[in-house]
Amino acid sequence: MNGHGGEEQTAFEIGFVVPKKAVEQEDEKYDCVEVLVDEFRKAGLIVDRVVGLNDEFIKLAAPLETLGKAAAELQLKKRTHIGVDLQFEWDGAEAFVRQPDGSLFSWCERFHSYQRIINGIVNKSKFVVTLKSNSKEVRWEPKEPLLRKLQSDGIVKEVFPLHDETKRKQLLRSWALKWRDFTNQPIDEICSYFGMKIATYFDFLGMYTRWMLFPAAFGLTLQLVDFRSMQFLVLPVFFISVISWAVLFLQFWKRQNSVLLARWQINYPVETEPGYKFLEMEWRSFQSPVELMRRWGMEKSKEKEVFQREEWFGHLMRFRNDAIVILSIICLQLPFELAYAHLYEAIRSGFMKFGLTAAYLFTIQYFTKIGGKISVKLVKYENNRSTEYRADSLVYKVFGLYFMQSYIGLFYHALLHRNFTTLRQVLIQRLIVSEVLENLMENSVPYLKYSYKKYKAVRKKRKDEKGSSAGKIQSMSRVEKEYLKPAYSASIGKELEDGLFDDFLELALQFGMIMMFACAFPLAFVFAALNNITEIRTDALKLLAMLKRPIPRAAATIGAWLNIFQFLIVMSICTNCLLLVCLYDEEGEWKISPGLAAILIMEHVLLLIKFGFSHMVPEEPAWVKAKRMRNATQAQDMCSKQLLRSISGG
Amino acid sequence: MNGHGGEEQTAFEIGFVVPKKAVEQEDEKYDCVEVLVDEFRKAGLIVDRVVGLNDEFIKLAAPLETLGKAAAELQLKKRTHIGVDLQFEWDGAEAFVRQPDGSLFSWCERFHSYQRIINGIVNKSKFVVTLKSNSKEVRWEPKEPLLRKLQSDGIVKEVFPLHDETKRKQLLRSWALKWRDFTNQPIDEICSYFGMKIATYFDFLGMYTRWMLFPAAFGLTLQLVDFRSMQFLVLPVFFISVISWAVLFLQFWKRQNSVLLARWQINYPVETEPGYKFLEMEWRSFQSPVELMRRWGMEKSKEKEVFQREEWFGHLMRFRNDAIVILSIICLQLPFELAYAHLYEAIRSGFMKFGLTAAYLFTIQYFTKIGGKISVKLVKYENNRSTEYRADSLVYKVFGLYFMQSYIGLFYHALLHRNFTTLRQVLIQRLIVSEVLENLMENSVPYLKYSYKKYKAVRKKRKDEKGSSAGKIQSMSRVEKEYLKPAYSASIGKELEDGLFDDFLELALQFGMIMMFACAFPLAFVFAALNNITEIRTDALKLLAMLKRPIPRAAATIGAWLNIFQFLIVMSICTNCLLLVCLYDEEGEWKISPGLAAILIMEHVLLLIKFGFSHMVPEEPAWVKAKRMRNATQAQDMCSKQLLRSISGG
Repeated sequence: MNGHGGEEQTAFEIGFVVPKKAVEQEDEKYDCVEVLVDEFRKAGLIVDRVVGLNDEFIKLAAPLETLGKAAAELQLKKRTHIGVDLQFEWDGAEAFVRQPDGSLFSWCERFHSYQRIINGIVNKSKFVVTLKSNSKEVRWEPKEPLLRKLQSDGIVKEVFPLHDETKRKQLLRSWALKWRDFTNQPIDEICSYFGMKIATYFDFLGMYTRWMLFPAAFGLTLQLVDFRSMQFLVLPVFFISVISWAVLFLQFWKRQNSVLLARWQINYPVETEPGYKFLEMEWRSFQSPVELMRRWGMEKSKEKEVFQREEWFGHLMRFRNDAIVILSIICLQLPFELAYAHLYEAIRSGFMKFGLTAAYLFTIQYFTKIGGKISVKLVKYENNRSTEYRADSLVYKVFGLYFMQSYIGLFYHALLHRNFTTLRQVLIQRLIVSEVLENLMENSVPYLKYSYKKYKAVRKKRKDEKGSSAGKIQSMSRVEKEYLKPAYSASIGKELEDGLFDDFLELALQFGMIMMFACAFPLAFVFAALNNITEIRTDALKLLAMLKRPIPRAAATIGAWLNIFQFLIVMSICTNCLLLVCLYDEEGEWKISPGLAAILIMEHVLLLIKFGFSHMVPEEPAWVKAKRMRNATQAQDMCSKQLLRSISGG
Repeated sequence: MNGHGGEEQTAFEIGFVVPKKAVEQEDEKYDCVEVLVDEFRKAGLIVDRVVGLNDEFIKLAAPLETLGKAAAELQLKKRTHIGVDLQFEWDGAEAFVRQPDGSLFSWCERFHSYQRIINGIVNKSKFVVTLKSNSKEVRWEPKEPLLRKLQSDGIVKEVFPLHDETKRKQLLRSWALKWRDFTNQPIDEICSYFGMKIATYFDFLGMYTRWMLFPAAFGLTLQLVDFRSMQFLVLPVFFISVISWAVLFLQFWKRQNSVLLARWQINYPVETEPGYKFLEMEWRSFQSPVELMRRWGMEKSKEKEVFQREEWFGHLMRFRNDAIVILSIICLQLPFELAYAHLYEAIRSGFMKFGLTAAYLFTIQYFTKIGGKISVKLVKYENNRSTEYRADSLVYKVFGLYFMQSYIGLFYHALLHRNFTTLRQVLIQRLIVSEVLENLMENSVPYLKYSYKKYKAVRKKRKDEKGSSAGKIQSMSRVEKEYLKPAYSASIGKELEDGLFDDFLELALQFGMIMMFACAFPLAFVFAALNNITEIRTDALKLLAMLKRPIPRAAATIGAWLNIFQFLIVMSICTNCLLLVCLYDEEGEWKISPGLAAILIMEHVLLLIKFGFSHMVPEEPAWVKAKRMRNATQAQDMCSKQLLRSISGG
């Protein structure tokens, strides 16, 4: 289209790793890699081939027109100038709103278009084509996508998004290394480079850090000033203001998120529930009962029943899975954690304590891994409507595990021992260990991994070349370096979540720690604020310099984590009250008899049920929703083309 | 259009009350009533004139075409066959979905069209027309609506919707007098006769009564069966199951409401918050900053600020008003109620008690009236977006008053005296008084009022006729009888709410009573169930036989009452826990020291803040919403006509 947008499209954005060609190739025509490259060129892509140390790399770029046609095939919905989302068509491209950086497609849309083009390369002839790769033979069946075949035969080792060197360096300067900017970040550029999900994370992190300064200042004041006779009032006041702070923060985050959605031209309203009610998004995510939808209208009365059965069965499955997770956490993990906490208290010798902790850390590694795997399996049986829903479901399940792991020891100290000095010690330890060390680890581990891989690759090359020709090793190409960098992946199940899981988990655990024990250790907010200020830059550095470019995700909310933060606030109201009881009741005079305790526990459980149950029964029956969806899409299909023509014409 | 729909339109639906013409009229041409009737005929309405005992009545009916054209002028949005709401146009009438009874417009749409036609009658000439009525002279200014002029001059005494005799009798048979149907009601017919808001009320009442049978059966079992050694467990189990029942009931009601919306072809999704996010409805309710909207686009950066200021100012006003209401309830009403409760306990003599109660009842009458007036005034200063929002805001404010009035005496008994026998007595008294008596009153008071008015009218007629000619009084016409019937109006401020306020209030107070004291008196559920079964039929009878036909309201949800029911559930969790403490702690051994009590109270207040605060800050900033709205309407305006043509053509 215009020069600016067109120019940017020429950056290479997708990389393929294929084996290096042996020199003595006879028939170039049937070589896998040659065919692949040929097909790419036929599809309108710009191909660049780089021979690396041990592998060959194919880099792809796409002219805007190629992308646009793929986007039209994908039936992508895009925001137009009049504010409605319409199906993209190449002829009406002027009608669509451009990204803040001036390009027509966002990175996520470009990525999906690439995928469409690449997966669209199939054997169009009616016969099996036999391809060769070094020594192997590959039978390319008719209508079979070439890439999938080559991947399953191990010829294409990996497909990954490539960093855009100019933009990356610019972001490094304007974002990762710009410490003076404090919590300000160039969100639009992050969004256009990493996609909306990651930009949302950084915006959340920035806002969280900015807001954190208030309680941090309050906490510091509490530490430094002596309130004399009013001292006994200080903690309750702190507690109340911290809770109000947290509630307001989350509410204002929701507002901020909807501002982001408006800025990035996304149409759906933000909601607390895991489900966005806007028509198209919902429709797109309404995948599972798609066949049902088609038959709708034929047998209306039956349809309603089928939908209702489907809906309740889905709920039942999710309820069963949640029950399994909760029960196994309570029956398996809780005793284990309590045993560790108790032993740690009971053992006197420092050496034994060290050994115990080492053994414990080793065990929980396995625990979380197993838990993650089980959760991924459970989630697969659920009838979740889209990848983002599935990811959210996984996050809820796994967070339970981490919650127990991180806090049960602290609860043990706080409530059973009423020993506040150890509690504070443990809190400081945890904050320093989990935050300072983790920040370092986050960057150093990927770097070490990368260095090790690079070292191995060079050594292998040396070994191979010893036979043929002894010469200097050429310096490593940029694409090969990127290939050796680790991917941005989650510590649990890679299928559903990427590295954002770990980053959000860190934030959520920190939030829980400082909120739930706010009264025991008000200074924690200062630690957290300092940590988060560095966290912004280290996370940015990690994404830009240490890892492969992540695969973009289309969602632009923080998903399940919002509910987790809300849950942590409610938890922290209860725990802080208990802490206050322990603090003010040093002589143990406020005895709670078992009867009273039972009734109080019952009350809290019921309140939890009241506010939790509402999520169990959806407010709109599935068949009502399906009908609404069907209507909306029908109307849009009818007027979409007419509307598009009239906008782009005018 | 088709014969069936057209035929139904001929029923007379609007009535006017004008003074009876004195016989010696000179110039018929400039008589007010004649001009009015003439203008009605010119506007395409069918007019019928009935001379009553003391007044003359004008009855209006409208052919479908007249209504249709008025609806098109109103730019009414209606559901089309393809499921989208489009602006109504008379030429494309076939494209729109018909009501369940086969007519094109619902009663509410018809009513608005009538209003449009009647208010559209203005002085089209450039000169003042001087009209006469008996002896008075009326100056009809150019462009002035005739009706408003005549109303302000007291010539048109009243405009009211007329009952449709055939439909009314049919509904009496199939609904009000069909006791065998138990909780089943012909909801579609109710909706087409009374409009959606009233039909929603009856659907809610029916569902509530059906669901009530479970806890009623449980309560009865508790009363009849002796559980021996398990007796101490029975109440907690009852408590938990009743709370779960209530939570599930409200959740399933939300589902049922969205089914109703789908059935009545309304497009917006149900939500817990007082705000429906669907585009058009919202747009229609987005009235106050309409001028702002027009200027939008000119100065975008300023707009955002203006919107934000407007938004927060509105919140501030609402917050201030709520604070005023809550403070005045706590500072003025609470001491008064407590004083009454205390005096009632302290006084021994039965006669004195009776006198005290009479004085109390007399005082609270005034109290509620003043409270209602103040609330109406406060609501006027708020920036609420539509009549339904204003009505909801009023309901919240006034409910606080009734809540204190109804329950504070009960709390006093329950918690301070720990005297369960009196508590139970008072509960039974209240249930019988408030429910059985109220049901009787609801029907007898309107009837008595009507009889008195009729008697007065006949007497006046007799007196007048004594002078002229002594003869028999002709029997009263149907329309005059209707005119004498009382209107369906709220006991507080008539401006914002109609009689539904009293009906919902009765339900909510009953729900609060049986839920909050569930553990003290499980049998209350049986009373409530029996009462509600009769309530359905007596309310139906009241609407059909005792009152004027109510003005239809467009909303199809129970509005603020849903949140009030939710609030009552949370309250009942807390009160029942306190009751259980009192019940099981007969020896007073479970002492709660002041420190512990303070912390527990703080916890509950904070939990309230957590779940209440979220409503304070809207999730979507007003300017984001305004932008979204603007986009949606723009698009709809663009494609509305094209779409309509293609549907009605096909």
